[in-house]
Amino acid sequence: MPGVFVAAIDLGGTKAALALVGKDKSITHRQVLHTSDYLRPEDFVQAISAWLGSVQKELSPLDRIVGVGVGAPSGNRLHGTLDYAPNMPWEGVVPLATLLHEKTGLPCVLDNDANVAAYGEWEFGAAREMDDFIVITLGTGLGSAFICNGRMLYGHQGLAGEAGHMVIVPGGRPCKCGRQGCAETYCSATGFMMTFRELMQEAGREQELVHYFDPKAVEAAAKMGDTIARESFQKTAEWLGLTLANCCVFSNPRLIVLTGGLAGAGKLLLQPLQEVFERNLLRSYKGHVSLTFSALPGQDAALLGAASLVWRSFSSANPEFHEFL
Amino acid sequence: MPGVFVAAIDLGGTKAALALVGKDKSITHRQVLHTSDYLRPEDFVQAISAWLGSVQKELSPLDRIVGVGVGAPSGNRLHGTLDYAPNMPWEGVVPLATLLHEKTGLPCVLDNDANVAAYGEWEFGAAREMDDFIVITLGTGLGSAFICNGRMLYGHQGLAGEAGHMVIVPGGRPCKCGRQGCAETYCSATGFMMTFRELMQEAGREQELVHYFDPKAVEAAAKMGDTIARESFQKTAEWLGLTLANCCVFSNPRLIVLTGGLAGAGKLLLQPLQEVFERNLLRSYKGHVSLTFSALPGQDAALLGAASLVWRSFSSANPEFHEFL
Repeated sequence: MPGVFVAAIDLGGTKAALALVGKDKSITHRQVLHTSDYLRPEDFVQAISAWLGSVQKELSPLDRIVGVGVGAPSGNRLHGTLDYAPNMPWEGVVPLATLLHEKTGLPCVLDNDANVAAYGEWEFGAAREMDDFIVITLGTGLGSAFICNGRMLYGHQGLAGEAGHMVIVPGGRPCKCGRQGCAETYCSATGFMMTFRELMQEAGREQELVHYFDPKAVEAAAKMGDTIARESFQKTAEWLGLTLANCCVFSNPRLIVLTGGLAGAGKLLLQPLQEVFERNLLRSYKGHVSLTFSALPGQDAALLGAASLVWRSFSSANPEFHEFL
Repeated sequence: MPGVFVAAIDLGGTKAALALVGKDKSITHRQVLHTSDYLRPEDFVQAISAWLGSVQKELSPLDRIVGVGVGAPSGNRLHGTLDYAPNMPWEGVVPLATLLHEKTGLPCVLDNDANVAAYGEWEFGAAREMDDFIVITLGTGLGSAFICNGRMLYGHQGLAGEAGHMVIVPGGRPCKCGRQGCAETYCSATGFMMTFRELMQEAGREQELVHYFDPKAVEAAAKMGDTIARESFQKTAEWLGLTLANCCVFSNPRLIVLTGGLAGAGKLLLQPLQEVFERNLLRSYKGHVSLTFSALPGQDAALLGAASLVWRSFSSANPEFHEFL
């Protein structure tokens, strides 16, 4: 039987994962490119095109690649561009969707990583058939995507869903956005590590900090019963619970899906979080919002999401978007 | 020429304003009912029906009333109900849209007062032809309505747009919702008066407080140069500026319209607010969001909004809503 595939690209500052994704969630023809090897976006697009050419040779003549879906930090769907992506080798506004479309002749849809994670959950994950949900990514920063009444919120510049930059502690921790007290300075993996370091210093244990590079190490310590490691999860849950309750007053969702590095901590985070979240929730929402972790396989979630971008676009094209369908 | 009208109802805890509204913004056949005169919602509906009957006699035979639009605190559009409205004489969940429809035979659309204000701005006011905007009502509480991508946000329970209950000061002022630090405890007309009282007390001027019943009195004092009255506007602007900047990270709007009692203060509030808002705004939104006060006549804005509910429903019916079109 002939197959129909999307070429999915999970584009990051250091690596780009490529693969073909089928409607059945199958992932084949994987490839990894090193983003920094490509000085100009045109060179990167050339490499994608070469990969597509080699993939096409391996497919049967009846198989079809129907589009290219790209998830990238600072991806702007309205314009199909990367907008001043801070960790990317290419500067300014990069019209990546146009470049990919012109080179490959394929429809191309591009969006930011949080939105792509949400499309993945919508198509394949925890939010199937849902019309009102929020996806929160807890990585280096705190990303968010709001699906309301069956549609992704984009806003008039395509920059909606920046819950990580909601100020939750006026005059609080400095944020790289130039302001203070943004949710992501407390609730992202980076914010979590800062909380852990603060607590270790208060306890006079700063000399041990060299053993803790990332949340995984703190998680391991917490599982061994380390009090400060556990307290770091509790404090992060306090801030994240407040942040999520604040998100609910905007869109009154049915579900919040947590994903990204810190979500890997599982129960250590979810258990205190559930309690804090319910406590902070506006009374009329209590018992009406579920909180869950992504059930998609971590390393493939972004590829599945990037593919969903294309599948969803076919079923509900939006004339506002700069897409090639 | 025969006219087409909507029967608009601006329902409050003490009064209900009724009128016919034409597509040209004309308001005729005004009537005021005292809500507390009606012990049961059925009695109120009976009075509405009687008013409609008398109005109909005054219209020409070719004139037509095409529907009833109702704006009310705690109005829930998804179910056409008043849900536990705290200041209304009727308790629990009141199926007002159903009652009105059954009694009058007319299509009936009901929504909460903030959403109704937003429909008014959309149809007749500052937000005509706009797809992405927010309306904030600064009255006893802080109400909000989010229009995103050409549609009002309702959320899965019909309870979206509760920006007044975003916590902006963790551990801050107690809110009647049972939590602490909600935006409305600082930014509503009530919150403003509390700030004024706090400042007067700090200054040892509490004996003067008897002269200040409402923001209008403080406004007059500020215009006379009273330092504490002016400082109250400045402090309120600080909190409101932060609240509005936080709203923007969700929906990336093009415009925010302020309405309600406190908005009447005009420049006294808007001038410091503009500055604080721009300072708090995420960099990528700077220069892309306008802030304005409602240009609709205060006493009629809710009637115009209630009428817009019906006009808009005809042009974009939503099968989710419990409406009779």
